[in-house]
Amino acid sequence: MMQAKQLRLLLESPETNFLMEAHNAISAKIAESTGFKALWASGLSISTALGVRDSNELSWSQVIDVLEYIVDAVSIPILVDGDTGHGNFNNARNFAKKLCQLGVAGLCIEDKTFPKMNSFVGNKQLLADIDEFSGKIKAIKDHQPNSDFCVIARVEALIAGAGMSEALRRAEAYRAAGADAILIHSKQSTADEILEFTRCWDTNYPLIIVPTKYYKTPTEDFIKAGISLIIWANHNIRASIKAMEETCKQIFNERSLLRVEGEIAELNDIFSLIDYDELSMSEKKYLPKISKGKADVRKEKICTTSH
Amino acid sequence: MMQAKQLRLLLESPETNFLMEAHNAISAKIAESTGFKALWASGLSISTALGVRDSNELSWSQVIDVLEYIVDAVSIPILVDGDTGHGNFNNARNFAKKLCQLGVAGLCIEDKTFPKMNSFVGNKQLLADIDEFSGKIKAIKDHQPNSDFCVIARVEALIAGAGMSEALRRAEAYRAAGADAILIHSKQSTADEILEFTRCWDTNYPLIIVPTKYYKTPTEDFIKAGISLIIWANHNIRASIKAMEETCKQIFNERSLLRVEGEIAELNDIFSLIDYDELSMSEKKYLPKISKGKADVRKEKICTTSH
Amino acid sequence: MMQAKQLRLLLESPETNFLMEAHNAISAKIAESTGFKALWASGLSISTALGVRDSNELSWSQVIDVLEYIVDAVSIPILVDGDTGHGNFNNARNFAKKLCQLGVAGLCIEDKTFPKMNSFVGNKQLLADIDEFSGKIKAIKDHQPNSDFCVIARVEALIAGAGMSEALRRAEAYRAAGADAILIHSKQSTADEILEFTRCWDTNYPLIIVPTKYYKTPTEDFIKAGISLIIWANHNIRASIKAMEETCKQIFNERSLLRVEGEIAELNDIFSLIDYDELSMSEKKYLPKISKGKADVRKEKICTTSH
Amino acid sequence: MMQAKQLRLLLESPETNFLMEAHNAISAKIAESTGFKALWASGLSISTALGVRDSNELSWSQVIDVLEYIVDAVSIPILVDGDTGHGNFNNARNFAKKLCQLGVAGLCIEDKTFPKMNSFVGNKQLLADIDEFSGKIKAIKDHQPNSDFCVIARVEALIAGAGMSEALRRAEAYRAAGADAILIHSKQSTADEILEFTRCWDTNYPLIIVPTKYYKTPTEDFIKAGISLIIWANHNIRASIKAMEETCKQIFNERSLLRVEGEIAELNDIFSLIDYDELSMSEKKYLPKISKGKADVRKEKICTTSH
Repeated sequence: MMQAKQLRLLLESPETNFLMEAHNAISAKIAESTGFKALWASGLSISTALGVRDSNELSWSQVIDVLEYIVDAVSIPILVDGDTGHGNFNNARNFAKKLCQLGVAGLCIEDKTFPKMNSFVGNKQLLADIDEFSGKIKAIKDHQPNSDFCVIARVEALIAGAGMSEALRRAEAYRAAGADAILIHSKQSTADEILEFTRCWDTNYPLIIVPTKYYKTPTEDFIKAGISLIIWANHNIRASIKAMEETCKQIFNERSLLRVEGEIAELNDIFSLIDYDELSMSEKKYLPKISKGKADVRKEKICTTSH
Repeated sequence: MMQAKQLRLLLESPETNFLMEAHNAISAKIAESTGFKALWASGLSISTALGVRDSNELSWSQVIDVLEYIVDAVSIPILVDGDTGHGNFNNARNFAKKLCQLGVAGLCIEDKTFPKMNSFVGNKQLLADIDEFSGKIKAIKDHQPNSDFCVIARVEALIAGAGMSEALRRAEAYRAAGADAILIHSKQSTADEILEFTRCWDTNYPLIIVPTKYYKTPTEDFIKAGISLIIWANHNIRASIKAMEETCKQIFNERSLLRVEGEIAELNDIFSLIDYDELSMSEKKYLPKISKGKADVRKEKICTTSH
Repeated sequence: MMQAKQLRLLLESPETNFLMEAHNAISAKIAESTGFKALWASGLSISTALGVRDSNELSWSQVIDVLEYIVDAVSIPILVDGDTGHGNFNNARNFAKKLCQLGVAGLCIEDKTFPKMNSFVGNKQLLADIDEFSGKIKAIKDHQPNSDFCVIARVEALIAGAGMSEALRRAEAYRAAGADAILIHSKQSTADEILEFTRCWDTNYPLIIVPTKYYKTPTEDFIKAGISLIIWANHNIRASIKAMEETCKQIFNERSLLRVEGEIAELNDIFSLIDYDELSMSEKKYLPKISKGKADVRKEKICTTSH
Repeated sequence: MMQAKQLRLLLESPETNFLMEAHNAISAKIAESTGFKALWASGLSISTALGVRDSNELSWSQVIDVLEYIVDAVSIPILVDGDTGHGNFNNARNFAKKLCQLGVAGLCIEDKTFPKMNSFVGNKQLLADIDEFSGKIKAIKDHQPNSDFCVIARVEALIAGAGMSEALRRAEAYRAAGADAILIHSKQSTADEILEFTRCWDTNYPLIIVPTKYYKTPTEDFIKAGISLIIWANHNIRASIKAMEETCKQIFNERSLLRVEGEIAELNDIFSLIDYDELSMSEKKYLPKISKGKADVRKEKICTTSH
């Protein structure tokens, strides 16, 4: 079964499903091996890993380059954080075509202006014109090469402080334009406005949320509210930053690996995660015996006295 | 002062200096902010982050793409793990030219055949012909656009089980060919063969070691032995893998962020590490006041009853 | 019908078919619109367009980047000149996987050592070990995601001066290893050795030739000899070089466009080749009416006197 | 002397200088060897070569990838067609930093909205807000790592039908913002409005023109009008398209290379343009003698009878 179809089934399932953030191939592999059924390729996390700001400092093709490694590393579906679609309807549909070509399962675009700013930064988010954003959704849906490919419309009205009615009006417009689901975003520390939105919204149509800020709300509440997908949006990159900060500090201060050795993954974990064994077995199969002895293998000690 | 010059000074310093592994921009930024004076752009770590094997599965230009983000993210010098130079002398000198163009400080190449296999995997490492490898060093040195650029010759004779005399013979040949330093590598769990090498070697010429396997040896022993640079070669990627594995497991099992929230870096740490404030200040300087009111900002609740 | 299937049909057709060289998207589009049924993505031509030598100065991923534009630009199948496979069996099968992922129809690899040198340059071509090259073919065939993907083994024995028996021995070994066809290459100015090869070879198995040097031989002779595919291997890049040299010279000398204007393609040809009309129509469909008047449109002359 | 400095000297020279279009490394090499002192890396030409529309279908990083090959291929300065700067002031300054890092001499940005449309297509060009565009210029100038780097402001007011006064008002604003020169663009078939602009403008400040449409006007008129640089903007790509169309047609119809062989560049021209001799000489210097005889070199005919 294709990944896009898998994501579509998760989206349409009566159960609530969970997407884990990935920002590179190794985080994707780890999330997959943990048991997650789908991944969120987060714009913030990818930007952070690459040292740039989540404000379209990465070009769309740089994002594609990251995604290619992720796609090659896992077999579960990937939903891509596509920001505002990287320009107008034409850039957005071209980006979506590239994602399909690559085997990505879905694309989420948000109704802000290009270049966007991360939704948790500042308080002057500019919303896109509704008709212009609806046209963008239509253009993607009309041109996606894979009919299972999922297009998610992310409503930023609550983030921008534009109010609940505006959020609902936009969600409705994007549904009408062909979006396969709505992601309703919020930066409040409680889930109040999210839950209000769900009460006003036809829950037969899939809803997606990102509880980064309102993480204290029990997941059970979202399940009851009929949320389709919950995205754990940036926790792999945040876990790795904390771990690297501590490891760097310890090694720097102690000038020794002694104490970090037991705290971090072993080399063999890496060789296992990336399946070095397959290469070794393939060498036996495809590489003819290579004549050894290129270097003259004399193992005697030739110098035993110190200077 | 240029980064290549900085690396050269570290190399020629009478003190022992330490390089921390980086595999992407954020790990580089963390190492720099911890206090490390230089970075090791590890082939194993970069490959692992991208989900591929440390066996030249990445092309040289894919490595360059990773390095570009790292160079843009830090101001300390970067020593690049260049494997065998990605082909013959011509590929190696072209790769070195690209590194100089990018602002990378130095390149380390190892005397194995292309494609190489990670030195800790298997036991059939094939060594390069000494003359061929010496020609590679000469070609790089003769064509490097920046005279301070450092070229390190990594001797794999001990890794390949070719013996101490072979290691010394090779190190001497590479020094004669123009290498700025020798990296002598070992996969033994003690530093015996490394320390034997240093006793046989003129310590006025810079030596570099990678104590991944013989990490129990006190650093003081290497300082006494006159080692110039010690590379902590893969500990950032290993720290991040362990942390992501634990975070994924916890979130997956608990279906909640509640317990991980306090264990990982905060979003504000990210915004601070990548300096979002600069962008905010620049917006004030370079962006004229943008007319608000694109969306009709009505904040009233329009729906208060649940379905 | 998929492109790989199309190429396979051309290969297995009783008729002789012709592949035209492409080195970028526009040359591919022109070849397609002329009527060619398939393209040869030439290593020499791509390298030349990018200003580097046909000696694996381009990485495999740089070649992929070029191919991506070509694939997006045409719907006819593309056979890729894959040099020696960019390393060992593992690099070659990874490269082939990327080609399949991209929608490329087939891959041709040649039995020389990495990095290769263009077959028409110098006289010290080094042939690969037969078993090693056969293993490479097997590895690709065993791992290609698309079963229609065509793998062509290019025999360089005649180029290397290794003789007819060696060429036949190699061709037979590569057929046994699973190659879908043999490309027998020659740099002689007559087709004598090529025709001798065909006489010694079971013509039920597809043969491919590249008559760059023996272009004087009538194509009818190759058709009679049962050649499956004939590749016109570098004539688009050579045509464009000659034209640009003349156009540059004329403009440089005359400091005027007057005489070149009628000799070169019109801008409208470009807009037609790349289908700007589609974008214009899509704008009408997907972009809401944009309010004009951003600039105050006053068209009066405000200054009519010269200084 | 650095390339940016060279471009600055051309810009400030009392003489009129000429820039030839390049869209890839080989066109750049040809223009340089013809005698041109600087290159115009045209957005239309680069897009066309890659099979996409001149409407920001290429990402900024894809443009950088093209430029990298061009920079590596020539030593004359390159002025890059940067469209609108690929987003806001932040994207524009980041793009400019990348250009400086690469060794590009200058950047031209135009005062339209992102994504732009080619100036010769359609008649609904949207102009940028003057203050916003001026902020973009300031941001680039304040952050360019190389002080000689030239930033050109391209005024599209005449293209957009906004009138002469608007064009002059914008040119003046961009000069005040720090632009090193003004490019005044026109799509009329005569130079009337261009010459009117020059009469109204202080000719001590460098002006650049692109006479693609008004090519019939004698260059002498522009020299008299004090134009600093004249850009021959797309004639290499147009020459190559025409040549490839004719060559493809001829080969396709005749199924033979016989007649095209004398009409196109020879293979030896390629080997000379890209300097294969240097590689050959370097092999002698850096590659030790390689033992021949990998293949058993028997040259006897082993089969002389046809089937």
